[in-house]
Amino acid sequence: MNQPIDLAVVGATGLVGETFLDLIEKKKIPVGKVRLFASEKSEGLKRTVCGVDRPIESLKAGCFDGLQLAFFSSGDDISKEWAPQAAKAGAYAIDNSAAFRMDPKISLVVPEVNANTIPKTPSIIANPNCSTIQLVVALSALKKFGLKAVRVASYQAASGAGKLAQQELLSQTKQGLTQDLTSTQFPVSLAFNCVPQIGSFNADGLCSEEVKIQKETKKILNLPSLYVSAFTVRVPAWNAHSEAVWIELEKEVSREQILAALHDQPGLQINNEIERYPHARMADGQDPVFVGRIHRDSEDTKTWRMWIVADNLLKGAALNGLQIAERIFAR
Amino acid sequence: MNQPIDLAVVGATGLVGETFLDLIEKKKIPVGKVRLFASEKSEGLKRTVCGVDRPIESLKAGCFDGLQLAFFSSGDDISKEWAPQAAKAGAYAIDNSAAFRMDPKISLVVPEVNANTIPKTPSIIANPNCSTIQLVVALSALKKFGLKAVRVASYQAASGAGKLAQQELLSQTKQGLTQDLTSTQFPVSLAFNCVPQIGSFNADGLCSEEVKIQKETKKILNLPSLYVSAFTVRVPAWNAHSEAVWIELEKEVSREQILAALHDQPGLQINNEIERYPHARMADGQDPVFVGRIHRDSEDTKTWRMWIVADNLLKGAALNGLQIAERIFAR
Repeated sequence: MNQPIDLAVVGATGLVGETFLDLIEKKKIPVGKVRLFASEKSEGLKRTVCGVDRPIESLKAGCFDGLQLAFFSSGDDISKEWAPQAAKAGAYAIDNSAAFRMDPKISLVVPEVNANTIPKTPSIIANPNCSTIQLVVALSALKKFGLKAVRVASYQAASGAGKLAQQELLSQTKQGLTQDLTSTQFPVSLAFNCVPQIGSFNADGLCSEEVKIQKETKKILNLPSLYVSAFTVRVPAWNAHSEAVWIELEKEVSREQILAALHDQPGLQINNEIERYPHARMADGQDPVFVGRIHRDSEDTKTWRMWIVADNLLKGAALNGLQIAERIFAR
Repeated sequence: MNQPIDLAVVGATGLVGETFLDLIEKKKIPVGKVRLFASEKSEGLKRTVCGVDRPIESLKAGCFDGLQLAFFSSGDDISKEWAPQAAKAGAYAIDNSAAFRMDPKISLVVPEVNANTIPKTPSIIANPNCSTIQLVVALSALKKFGLKAVRVASYQAASGAGKLAQQELLSQTKQGLTQDLTSTQFPVSLAFNCVPQIGSFNADGLCSEEVKIQKETKKILNLPSLYVSAFTVRVPAWNAHSEAVWIELEKEVSREQILAALHDQPGLQINNEIERYPHARMADGQDPVFVGRIHRDSEDTKTWRMWIVADNLLKGAALNGLQIAERIFAR
């Protein structure tokens, strides 16, 4: 990545878009043109990227011309309409929405897991769901032992629901405990609560976040018939998602083998000393996927349980997208 | 329960003890003598129960003489020393600590599940762990379909760690997000976080809350070889524990059969309309165990998933204890 890249960020004023721009500066990615897109209400605002003031623009025909990379994090509808145009204009369109993830023609990429699926020519590349990414980084390490079933209960932070949601959690929390709090960003008030709904429900009683984890995990791991059952819950954590995971393996393996496999997994950091498990506050702002509380299920010798935590804005979104870009432009 | 009961509450100044006393008033339980015990630092304080000021006393030899009921919620050590003395003095000693729960000679009772095990003469009766009680009320309903495996991830409120812990969550929350908060009541700061440790760890990597749920559930359901795997996590909820549960049955049953069985279960309230699931804020201060998000696992037709929520101070502790007493004195 020595040649400057001409790029666009669509959704530049959202939490993930801002995190992507922060990462470009922090990791000193060489950039040329940087075009920032957001909704019309942000038009006319400016944002400094790599020392240069850049205007916030609205999307319009031809806006991706001459760019090599476009990072999208602005919702499914915007991506459906504009990501194909970016790809057609010759840019790699790394899309953080759910619009293309399950499209069989589109690669769904976590670089440490399936970098081999990154396309060789400009096209749309899907960035997986935040809670999926941290899960598959750990699962990938154990795939060689034969994955039989994966059950995950998630503890997902407010930041996954966006900037307004974080602000709402804060104001609800300040209003305290006794009042009947109103909620617009969450289905019910999240302050001092747990809400077992992320997204909307389907006819089978699953919410969309659960469907995402289940389908995306199978696709990324290239294990279409793997048992993956996810129960997703929003908790009043500020940032970083946590997951309690049961991993049932085909065969019995030793604790040393499990730890060695996880240790060798790029992108994964083991914090497994007693009482030194990872947690959301410590993962906030950190790049790796953290794993701790790694232990054999007392009820089944082939099942391993662990606690997986990652910053959902970083590895769960912007950082994973940037890592895909780094793989592309390192070629 | 028409004859006034002479009773003691040991741990009368703790969250559970106070809840027990509140319930006696609210449910108009006829009481005669009421003796309140707490640690020496509370001696000399008073508390009004049923309109009468009662002194807080320290435990001393003979203090249970003439009483018919003693409710203990003051930690394992106090119960180990004093509950046998209460029983010897002729009182039913309902013990909310973990001291006797797994003793094969002691009944571990959730009245809606195994009231038949309540002893006929004054003795120690163990009140199960909070997160176990709400789980077994729901599992009991499904036992007739053959329970094969139960996996539960918990979302446990600050109140389960006591009054000081609730105060610490509040002050940590007020201190906000940016500071590195100190913690004395939780292993790490709970504010805007999730902490995968409740109790201390054993050599197998399980924390004591997990061991409690696993062992107590088998004992209460009288299914010693049932697969029960619990992953317990403290979350910044104020009060009421939530559980994401996978229940694997021996046979395939219809949705109607599951709902009918849960509907017929005493102590259980179904809130299963779409987007009308139970949550900690709504269960706070309520008697029932609430169950919602009842759905077949998309990955296995014999597995059912549900979300179980209950007030851990009420059904999870004081209310369950009082219900045991009601069964005893209704005889």
